[in-house]
Amino acid sequence: MKHCSHCGSEVELQIPNGDDRHRHICTDDDCSAIHYQNPKIIAGCLPVYQDKVLMCKRAIEPRYGFWTLPAGFMENNESVEEGAARETWEEARAKVQLDSLYTLFSLPQISQVYMMFRGHLTESEFSAGPESLEVALFSEEEIPWDDIAFPLVKKTLRHFFSDRKAGEFPMRSEAIYKPGTDKNTSFDTPVYRNK
Amino acid sequence: MKHCSHCGSEVELQIPNGDDRHRHICTDDDCSAIHYQNPKIIAGCLPVYQDKVLMCKRAIEPRYGFWTLPAGFMENNESVEEGAARETWEEARAKVQLDSLYTLFSLPQISQVYMMFRGHLTESEFSAGPESLEVALFSEEEIPWDDIAFPLVKKTLRHFFSDRKAGEFPMRSEAIYKPGTDKNTSFDTPVYRNK
Repeated sequence: MKHCSHCGSEVELQIPNGDDRHRHICTDDDCSAIHYQNPKIIAGCLPVYQDKVLMCKRAIEPRYGFWTLPAGFMENNESVEEGAARETWEEARAKVQLDSLYTLFSLPQISQVYMMFRGHLTESEFSAGPESLEVALFSEEEIPWDDIAFPLVKKTLRHFFSDRKAGEFPMRSEAIYKPGTDKNTSFDTPVYRNK
Repeated sequence: MKHCSHCGSEVELQIPNGDDRHRHICTDDDCSAIHYQNPKIIAGCLPVYQDKVLMCKRAIEPRYGFWTLPAGFMENNESVEEGAARETWEEARAKVQLDSLYTLFSLPQISQVYMMFRGHLTESEFSAGPESLEVALFSEEEIPWDDIAFPLVKKTLRHFFSDRKAGEFPMRSEAIYKPGTDKNTSFDTPVYRNK
């Protein structure tokens, strides 16, 4: 961010009065707008049909050609559930009924929060949307484990198959940091589980 | 948003190629940046000490003087849990250990997502931070039900006292719309519960 989105003047990083971190502040004295930047939500779904999971082969970067679960940026004026169902439609042309929030991943280094719901297909139809090369149902044995797009997708799938055997699907939350980097935070971020 | 935050030129609302909704797009042909706007996360906590809940009397608008649970905008470069614990410190000067995500509220009309965790105080100390007039512990009978700042706070408290009697704290998700407005969405948004 270089310019104020209100008036177009340049911004500079300063700590506003009463705040404790740097924000982009407009340098025009008549404007002085403070611009906050906040994490974005990616809403998605683990769509189940019979004993299989619906996955999408990515037609976009990053991770072109790798397999993922349908998910994407939540839009203004929708609920998280609506976002997850919308993305499942857009990427996999599948209609889902959502069960409950299943995994919650914070990615602090890129300021993203993934919220993945379990869901089940309400119809057997599906097909590749514009951001997918291919969409397919996989049993646990068929999952392309070596070609999964993102660690959080692999973690969600592993939890799911393990939980399905146990017959319970507790909501899980975890913060994922890039390998080899310090967390640089004062709180532990273990896997939280419903108690 | 009137100006491009990259170059300062004016923006206009248009639907980008391949998209299906209006975005702010820079009118400078050399820039043409597309500016996406997405919902913000408010992370918070229901902090428990012995059999009581810690609440804050708001020293800021909106709802100055009404009681709330500690919560605030999640910042970049933190996890949701870190945000919830940080806000509990900032508003109530209380140190909490978080249990699990407890309530998830989508407020589509203002593009906010509230994520409230259950937590318990690790020390008995607390005091009013700069955004609170007063901080106090309340038993169920003492809760100032008529002076609660926001519906989602009241809902979270009602769930908590009910669930405590039942001995289980399932994660709940709900979309809250302003009274008297149409949802104007294609998906139902019932209360989702872990199954």
